[in-house]
Amino acid sequence: MKYDLLSVTMNPSLDREVVVDNFKTDQLFRINNPSNSVMDPGGKGINVSLMLSTLGINSISTGFLGGFIGKVIQKGLSSVNEITTNFVYTRESTRENIEILDTLNNTITEINSMGPFITEEDYDHFLKRYRSTISLTENVLISGSIPPGVPINSYSKLLEIAKSENKRTFLEAIGPHFDQAIRENCADVVRVDLRKRTSRVLGSKLEKIEDFIETGKEILNYGAKLVIMSFHIVGDVVITNDGIWLFTVKEEIDNSHLLGTGDAFMAGIIYYLLKNELNYFEAAKYGMASAISSARYIGKILGNEDEVKNDLGKFEIKRLD
Amino acid sequence: MKYDLLSVTMNPSLDREVVVDNFKTDQLFRINNPSNSVMDPGGKGINVSLMLSTLGINSISTGFLGGFIGKVIQKGLSSVNEITTNFVYTRESTRENIEILDTLNNTITEINSMGPFITEEDYDHFLKRYRSTISLTENVLISGSIPPGVPINSYSKLLEIAKSENKRTFLEAIGPHFDQAIRENCADVVRVDLRKRTSRVLGSKLEKIEDFIETGKEILNYGAKLVIMSFHIVGDVVITNDGIWLFTVKEEIDNSHLLGTGDAFMAGIIYYLLKNELNYFEAAKYGMASAISSARYIGKILGNEDEVKNDLGKFEIKRLD
Repeated sequence: MKYDLLSVTMNPSLDREVVVDNFKTDQLFRINNPSNSVMDPGGKGINVSLMLSTLGINSISTGFLGGFIGKVIQKGLSSVNEITTNFVYTRESTRENIEILDTLNNTITEINSMGPFITEEDYDHFLKRYRSTISLTENVLISGSIPPGVPINSYSKLLEIAKSENKRTFLEAIGPHFDQAIRENCADVVRVDLRKRTSRVLGSKLEKIEDFIETGKEILNYGAKLVIMSFHIVGDVVITNDGIWLFTVKEEIDNSHLLGTGDAFMAGIIYYLLKNELNYFEAAKYGMASAISSARYIGKILGNEDEVKNDLGKFEIKRLD
Repeated sequence: MKYDLLSVTMNPSLDREVVVDNFKTDQLFRINNPSNSVMDPGGKGINVSLMLSTLGINSISTGFLGGFIGKVIQKGLSSVNEITTNFVYTRESTRENIEILDTLNNTITEINSMGPFITEEDYDHFLKRYRSTISLTENVLISGSIPPGVPINSYSKLLEIAKSENKRTFLEAIGPHFDQAIRENCADVVRVDLRKRTSRVLGSKLEKIEDFIETGKEILNYGAKLVIMSFHIVGDVVITNDGIWLFTVKEEIDNSHLLGTGDAFMAGIIYYLLKNELNYFEAAKYGMASAISSARYIGKILGNEDEVKNDLGKFEIKRLD
């Protein structure tokens, strides 16, 4: 069987999303409505596979899972027809991430754990599986953080293997493993994970719009065809070989609905490239509209084509360079 | 076999304690030290059994468990020699509670979920087990919230059974199920769970010290021998047939260490009454000192006798009536 996508999630998580209105520190809150406490499989690669599954796009999902929490994730993913799981099982347990949504004050508070230690044996096992799985697809997504024990060069290595087999590659992350991958084996589509507000990318601190442009160009020079960087909350900087643009949302979106919109952006790009011609700028527009559509849902859902087409009119595009 | 205590936890939880310094809303935090993310079996009855186990006191622990989370709790308790588990398994999953400790700003932020739905069949099954287990002990603790499906009169019922068999009874809770138990089958030792700041007890709102005294006397009139009510953060109101006192801590205790000190207070009282003469006022002093001792630990640990004796000098006792 052929898959539309191979998604790699080295550090999955069980996402525990709780809705707590008027959330403040130093208080005891009781959740009295079960729909305000949701638990679902997470990690950025898994999120993209889940979102794409809602539009019938199938993927094979790989990485590491362990412990009771790993079993909950495995069970959750197994119930999705469009997702085939191929995880390596680790001795230590998969992590659990906490996301607290306050729909009145429009805030998202996130607490992410580190993840289990991955032994050399487990990592080698994973690499073997990755190599044997990659022939089943034309598109490889590598997204998110790496757990302790996984070497810093792992993303570079995975991209090297994918590129040597002429796959289209998608990368979203931040940190030393991301920097090394960009420098050595840059992916075709790169999204910088800028959820943590103070961030260094390729040695530069991103503050002013000029920093974003400079770093984006650098990533392009390493071989990317499309680079996306969310620019604080106001918009996204989009860079291709044809130019640099700033996409900004016209209407205000509740902050508490922005959870996972980065993954929806990436899922939208992948969806566009699977279904349409190879136009990276158009794919970025589709990604942006998908992010806006998905902000309307709580849960890992990608808007359908009609919704997304409608949302193509919900943001402004300004050429920067 | 005989047990020192039967502890009832109708609504156990997997407690997820994370240490996040400078915790604020609307940010992404990453936990980079595994010791800052601890997961352990919880729920007020289980907490007391765990604390007592560290001093060699054995208990049989009952209530409801379900799902993967229930299995994690079962596994955790099974590793404690002093605890024998006797839970009824439910179809829906046990809840998970989130506790965020900020050791710099000394805050505890807690998010408690509701718990699984308990069917009539499961509840009847539990009652049968409770009736057959109660002969194995002389002391019964009923503590915490009730999950959906459990009737409001359940605590009253459990206390009725225990009292008819001449057991010493301990109760800590708040809410309609607590009020009904007090009115119909009041326990010997009663601690009001006042962690949620605005609270109604027996129809009265507790604000000024006079409200606490009035409500405490009312509980005594229903048959309690000892009533404890934490009075905001400054201290504890202690009421017996011999008088009314306010216990106040001399040194400031970091707020972030106060997690579980209510359960340590109850555990200290039970420990004292198991090991010493039947003196409720002395038991309350031992409970207060145990709460102060346990505030020094992260985790469900009760101070040993030497520590607690030392901490008997760490609070002031003022007679109110």
